[in-house]
Amino acid sequence: MTSQGLGRIEDGAIAVLDTPYADAGALIEATGSLDALAAAEVVRRIPLDEATGDDAGPLLAPIRPRALWGIGMNYHSKARLTGRDAPAEPVLYLAAPSSVSGPGAGVRLPAEQTAEMDYEAEIAVVIGRTLDHAAEADAWAAVAAVTAANDMTCRDVMKRTGWPVLAKSFPGFTPLGASLLSRDRVAGPDAIGVRSWVRGEQRQDSSSADMIFPIPELLARISRYAVLHPGDVVLTGTPAGTGQDRGDFLRPGDTIRVEIDGVLPLTTRVRT
Amino acid sequence: MTSQGLGRIEDGAIAVLDTPYADAGALIEATGSLDALAAAEVVRRIPLDEATGDDAGPLLAPIRPRALWGIGMNYHSKARLTGRDAPAEPVLYLAAPSSVSGPGAGVRLPAEQTAEMDYEAEIAVVIGRTLDHAAEADAWAAVAAVTAANDMTCRDVMKRTGWPVLAKSFPGFTPLGASLLSRDRVAGPDAIGVRSWVRGEQRQDSSSADMIFPIPELLARISRYAVLHPGDVVLTGTPAGTGQDRGDFLRPGDTIRVEIDGVLPLTTRVRT
Repeated sequence: MTSQGLGRIEDGAIAVLDTPYADAGALIEATGSLDALAAAEVVRRIPLDEATGDDAGPLLAPIRPRALWGIGMNYHSKARLTGRDAPAEPVLYLAAPSSVSGPGAGVRLPAEQTAEMDYEAEIAVVIGRTLDHAAEADAWAAVAAVTAANDMTCRDVMKRTGWPVLAKSFPGFTPLGASLLSRDRVAGPDAIGVRSWVRGEQRQDSSSADMIFPIPELLARISRYAVLHPGDVVLTGTPAGTGQDRGDFLRPGDTIRVEIDGVLPLTTRVRT
Repeated sequence: MTSQGLGRIEDGAIAVLDTPYADAGALIEATGSLDALAAAEVVRRIPLDEATGDDAGPLLAPIRPRALWGIGMNYHSKARLTGRDAPAEPVLYLAAPSSVSGPGAGVRLPAEQTAEMDYEAEIAVVIGRTLDHAAEADAWAAVAAVTAANDMTCRDVMKRTGWPVLAKSFPGFTPLGASLLSRDRVAGPDAIGVRSWVRGEQRQDSSSADMIFPIPELLARISRYAVLHPGDVVLTGTPAGTGQDRGDFLRPGDTIRVEIDGVLPLTTRVRT
């Protein structure tokens, strides 16, 4: 998604497309996938190096979900750090959709509420088809795309309030993007790499193979309670290496970079 | 909101209006209020007695929010029942917007998950203007309207999962309606009556005067964490008298009726 409309990535550029859809959410709600973009006419091209990097130029959040689900503690690497067993049931939560921001966003550190603002590199799953009491075997086929997320969290707010919702719902705290990778381009749900860097230093390096609740199981489990609709986003948890794990929280001026295999890098700046 | 478009209530009928807005959410997002409906041309009239009652005929949910906020334990009458002090901080949560249903809905009892499906009559507040770190004194003026909500909850799921989100996000579990009452028609935030009936027997009878966190304070507090946007809905808690308080949970065939002063009654049926 760019400020000039929907695009697809080809030949080192973003090909801005002539489509009747205002954004990827409208396309996915109408058709269940991104397939219609493959055949759309190209209106103009934006070189990728103009569109990416720390400020991300014309790139917008690729999706503005209605429901933004997340899961606590979903990587074995993270569970090992706590010394606890992997949870038997996923800890599921919703964050406010108003926390979504786009590539290159400057996100304010809410200093009046927190001294422990943190990053979490995550694989974000965009739902393509309705999931209601779905079988695990059917869940992956209902995914439209994956993208990168930085599931930013104020650790002290989470301790104080006892639950993730407020700690993760501050303005801009859920950067998404920089691009969507359609499901047919993903090798499978169990081998998606996820990495992060802060101040240029690598902090997280893992893959969905290390998930406690793999993506299909996670989607199936949510759908036993709530219906997942096209355009909803599920954040799938973060591996070890967050600021909390290192006792090193975010400061104004920091840049966080999240990479998910096959997705344009997602950078976020922390500002006062 | 009716199946024939937006309407206003006048002379014992719903006057269906000629407006460019698909629904009340679109109108509120565009203008911050319902004021534009006052001058709209009437296309046709539906007698109120055809449009209300247990099945509610052509009435739809008056709003489909993006963010659906709620608060645990917000009435002194409810706190007294627990024998605990009123909480010093509101317990805030988000429920899935896919749980919203309309007047007259039949809501399935998710028997595979619960033996304790419950009702909660609540005043639902529809946001009209963006609230971000709002002062309490400014919050009420940002409200577009109030409506009735039945914030249905599986008590055993809440105990099992430790938090309201899953217990309140089942399909249809948030009936809203049957009409919106615009803010200028509400005497004030502190004297709105809220009542419920189950199987024809009155169960709840209170008013917002008994709230622990009055509506303006509640909105201001949420906005210290998350931005509230036009069309978002905040459920403001339920008074004493729920099924939990009586050890009498919902059964298939039950009808729940919620009344908020000045709002058309909201009825919901429980089905298998």
